[in-house]
Order: sequence, then C-alpha cells, then structure tokens
Amino acid sequence: MLTEVLEVKLFVNFDHNFKIIILKIKFICIGKTGKDFLVAGEQEYLKRLQHYVPVERIEIPDLKNAKKLSIEQIKELEGKEIISKISGEQVILLDENGKEFSSVEFSQFIQQKFNQGGKGLAFVVGGAYGFSSEVYQIANSKISLSKMTFSHQMIRMVFFEQLYRGMTILKGEPYHHS
Amino acid sequence: MLTEVLEVKLFVNFDHNFKIIILKIKFICIGKTGKDFLVAGEQEYLKRLQHYVPVERIEIPDLKNAKKLSIEQIKELEGKEIISKISGEQVILLDENGKEFSSVEFSQFIQQKFNQGGKGLAFVVGGAYGFSSEVYQIANSKISLSKMTFSHQMIRMVFFEQLYRGMTILKGEPYHHS
Repeated sequence: MLTEVLEVKLFVNFDHNFKIIILKIKFICIGKTGKDFLVAGEQEYLKRLQHYVPVERIEIPDLKNAKKLSIEQIKELEGKEIISKISGEQVILLDENGKEFSSVEFSQFIQQKFNQGGKGLAFVVGGAYGFSSEVYQIANSKISLSKMTFSHQMIRMVFFEQLYRGMTILKGEPYHHS
Repeated sequence: MLTEVLEVKLFVNFDHNFKIIILKIKFICIGKTGKDFLVAGEQEYLKRLQHYVPVERIEIPDLKNAKKLSIEQIKELEGKEIISKISGEQVILLDENGKEFSSVEFSQFIQQKFNQGGKGLAFVVGGAYGFSSEVYQIANSKISLSKMTFSHQMIRMVFFEQLYRGMTILKGEPYHHS
C-alpha cells in the first residue's frame, strides 16, 4: 500500500484548487535523428519510460536555408521554436556548462523538480551551435551528462537511458547498480 | 608534408633497435552486446576508426555458472581472463572512480600514452561487478566517461564514439566542435 502511494507521488502535483495535475516530461530537440541504430535506441528507452512517466518527444525540424544564415541567426530562430514548445514546464537545458550529476543524484534532481510543482519538466537539447540568449533566459537549470562532448544525436539516446535509469532508482528497482 | 609526418607519428613508436612498432588499441570487454542497436552503433564507430588506428575488440565470454559464484569469485575469474589478453600494452580501465576528461583532453591523453612508448593501449570495461584487485594492480590509468553510470553495454558504443572523436581532434578534422 505504501508503495502504491509513493508510485503515484512521482507523477502528480495538486493545483491551488487541489485538483490533481499529471506531471509529464517534454524532451525537445532539433532535427531528425539520422542513424537507424540511434533511432532504435531512443525508441527502446522511450518505450520503457512509458511505464513510469509520460514522455513527449518534440523534434523541431532543421531550419531551411540554414547555410545562408549566420550562427547567431540560427540560434535565434531555433530558440524561438524551442520557446514556442514550452507551456509552463520547468526548463532544463542539456548544456556543456551544466551541472554534472551521478545517476542517483540525477534521479533526486528529477524528484525535486517534480516536487517543486508546475506543469512538469521540459528537457532541451540545442542544435549544433547551442542555445540563444533567449533560451538561456527562460531556463531554470542547466545539466551536463558528461565532461565529454557527445554528438547532439547520440545524446538523445544516452539521455533517455539516464531518465529511465533515474525512474528505476526512484522506484527502488534493480536496473541500476552503481 | 608536415601533415603526413604528424599522421604517421600518431600510430608508431620505435623500439630499442629503431624498428618501427605499429601502435594499436585493444578494447577488452565482458559478455556479448545484447541489443541490436548497440551492436550496430559499435560497428559504425569501429568501422570509422579503421581509418585512424587499428582497434582490436576483444570480448571475453560471460562466465558459465556465474549464479553459483560469489561476486568476488566472478571478479577474480573475469580478472584472470582480462589479464590474459594483455601483452605489453598500457592498461587503461574505464572505472567509475577514473579521471574525467573533456573530449579534447581525452584526445591529448591518447596522444601522450602513445608517445610514452610500449606496444599500444588496452582499454578495459569490467563486468557487472567491476574489476578484481589483480586488474587494478596492473592498470596504468583509470578513466571515466561520465559521473553518471552507463550500462556496461552502452558504454562500449559511447567509448568508440569518443575514441573516433579523439582521433579526428588529433588530426584537426571537423567532426568535433565543442
């Protein structure tokens, strides 16, 4: 019985009228995943995540005519698209200067963010040139999965695996052993 | 011309009789890669690496009857297998307590290790329970790809991508931009 209460606690908050809000996670990225094995990897972990938390994967199409644009213009246009996908969630950027966590710390971070209320979490992976200043301004947190640079394609699969790992840690399930 | 000399420098040392030694990289891991998408990902980056440095991927079979063995026994038996695959290389463990690098620092680390001579490098990923004390004793370095725990299956693909990235950094090629 206690377990059931804890399970529910992960995914809901209450609004000011004590109505239940189902928390969900948005994952926003730019451009199609190119390689088939990375597509398959993302699907694998997204499927597993369904059992824990609703995850909406939002893919912003690559800019047309990007070659004619400056890096600043690309970041700005991509930034506007990113911001248009946010609707009240806490915004967490995957950023090279973000805070690094162990997997257990990352699961606690997700739990804390959920507990802080709001409409859930939006994790954002930028394009090849990073984020515009507008995106940095609306961000609540910046996290980093590694000191190493991962391709902005592969990081999607790695992130979903860590999110899945985090959920199993919060539920006390045996997938994770550090 | 200078470029050509630099390219060769990456991969060779000279022995005491000034004979050229072709450097190579061994990658030692335990157990088959289970998921098809991870197998495909490993193959992708191993194929790309062929153009830069010979990489030998050595997979030690999972122990039979592991369920009847204690964790210490498993680590010890796996450790003996690992040590049997080393023949004069510098041994670098992928270990949760290892040193973290940026991708650029990692490429410099590889270059330094190559320059130190010997017969090349052997990177080792342990089994589910980590390394035996015997393996730690023969190790020259310990590195970590992330503070986060990656599955010991996925880490193979992530490592090969970083190794490939490192090679392109050392050659000044455009794959990497941090």
